[in-house]
Amino acid sequence: MRIGLDVMGGDFAPDAIIEGAVDSLRHLTDREELYLIGDESSIKTKLNELQTDPSRFHIVHTTQVIEMADHPAKSFSQKQDSSIAVGYTMLNNGELDGFCSAGNTGAMLVGATYTVKLIPGVLRPALATILPCIDNRDSVILDVGLNPDCKPEVLLQYAILGSIYAKYVLGTQNPTVGLINLGEEETKGTPAIKAAYELMKEYPGINFAGNIEGNHLFRETMTDVIVCDGFVGNVILKEGEAFHHIYKSRNLKDEYFDRLDFENYGGTPIVGINANVVIGHGISKRKAIMNMILQTKAVVQANLAQKIKEAI
Amino acid sequence: MRIGLDVMGGDFAPDAIIEGAVDSLRHLTDREELYLIGDESSIKTKLNELQTDPSRFHIVHTTQVIEMADHPAKSFSQKQDSSIAVGYTMLNNGELDGFCSAGNTGAMLVGATYTVKLIPGVLRPALATILPCIDNRDSVILDVGLNPDCKPEVLLQYAILGSIYAKYVLGTQNPTVGLINLGEEETKGTPAIKAAYELMKEYPGINFAGNIEGNHLFRETMTDVIVCDGFVGNVILKEGEAFHHIYKSRNLKDEYFDRLDFENYGGTPIVGINANVVIGHGISKRKAIMNMILQTKAVVQANLAQKIKEAI
Repeated sequence: MRIGLDVMGGDFAPDAIIEGAVDSLRHLTDREELYLIGDESSIKTKLNELQTDPSRFHIVHTTQVIEMADHPAKSFSQKQDSSIAVGYTMLNNGELDGFCSAGNTGAMLVGATYTVKLIPGVLRPALATILPCIDNRDSVILDVGLNPDCKPEVLLQYAILGSIYAKYVLGTQNPTVGLINLGEEETKGTPAIKAAYELMKEYPGINFAGNIEGNHLFRETMTDVIVCDGFVGNVILKEGEAFHHIYKSRNLKDEYFDRLDFENYGGTPIVGINANVVIGHGISKRKAIMNMILQTKAVVQANLAQKIKEAI
Repeated sequence: MRIGLDVMGGDFAPDAIIEGAVDSLRHLTDREELYLIGDESSIKTKLNELQTDPSRFHIVHTTQVIEMADHPAKSFSQKQDSSIAVGYTMLNNGELDGFCSAGNTGAMLVGATYTVKLIPGVLRPALATILPCIDNRDSVILDVGLNPDCKPEVLLQYAILGSIYAKYVLGTQNPTVGLINLGEEETKGTPAIKAAYELMKEYPGINFAGNIEGNHLFRETMTDVIVCDGFVGNVILKEGEAFHHIYKSRNLKDEYFDRLDFENYGGTPIVGINANVVIGHGISKRKAIMNMILQTKAVVQANLAQKIKEAI
């Protein structure tokens, strides 16, 4: 398995990215090859500092950098020798099985849409991330930021994509699906949510459990898959981050609240495209980068993109 | 000041309601008169059990009950001698200065809209509730459930209503206003959110601080007023409840997480109508009911409805 890592993307790049890559080696076997994509001399200097043999990696030298504040589409097309553009080209040519980056999210999405492209039949891609449940399950929530406004048929498809993710990446058999709403009753919500409820209820390929309210999130009553538009999903995810932050600032000690740390999850796959791509948080440090790499491995291992192609 | 309390509404009515009313006496002076609206014999029996002199209250006998599962509009018009309908009639006749209930929310809204009516110029009413901040401020968020889909001009008006609430009920001078969004940048969000951002930026009467993301909620960076549609606000509020519940279940001890308990806030005022009305959570018990009464007092004291009339 060949995993590409964008070394130049993220608020703490390249140092934190290379540190995370070195840490990930402890969890990878010889069968997983890591491609460090970025400025070769920076990479070698940092590896030397970390006393790590560069031959443990493939180094792919690039000369350009898409900065965090760059315009996504413009920078992607103008900086064809950037780590993000080169990563996508390699992915598209079959030289990589998966690619991950904590860099410019917009540029990562441009690459996803214009280089590797949507799987035929997929209406809109989604960012899918994990919410840790108090009963030790991991649930998947989507979308968490790509599509702030979703049509009912897009929400139905997210239910299908999320179920595939839960089954193959998280190993959950017959995952339950919940639709985020402001009440449990079928008649609640916006017209789009009500229509999505009807579509999910009728669709035989998912295990639809009905509406789920905010007070069920993270708790035993949370479904395995949580479907919402990218606006609501983004707020849910980040409110969880706020509570993890408050928990830390209060010097509390608790196993569950420790699991809430987004650094444990490392990144969110873009689901619905023809390749396995994971996007990390811009503020990712060493630990989050390591987990982003390991999550990319899990997504490649599950062959997520292929499983979605077969299902859609 | 005359405060009406619906004794028959709520999952634990009438007992918990009467208990909360008795507890509230400790925090009320002779100038605050409490009207218990409901079945007189149940009220007297319970007061006797609690060894409380009935003359501490005004008892308004009613013969009908709007059940939690009743159809809001139908039951409101058919049960004119219910505690909810009688409360609204008294409010409308000037026999009460404020009215609160933990009963059927739909019926409470029907009464708000058809009996006391919207303040002329208000586009849509909102439910406004308090979010406790880690730095000991209380912020107000609206809407938390009335309008799942909001037009930009409604969101602007919520910013104005919320600012009045923060100023007069919470005592915050020149309250900052944040618009919930999935990014801080002006260009983020749905078309409605982007348009609301433009309206708020241009409006001189509020102290607009820009977009606010989920990870700023409850923290020092939370604004004094938080504006969102009722769908998103409902999820935010209930996710907070989920974390409070998890906190309790983990046997943690922390002053801030204790403040997160919704029972401390007791109820959410309906803002934008011609009278002071507070709605409690259906599952309210003794403590939440007491706090709902005290919050109604605060809203009446601030003369919220009148302040909004003057501002709109």
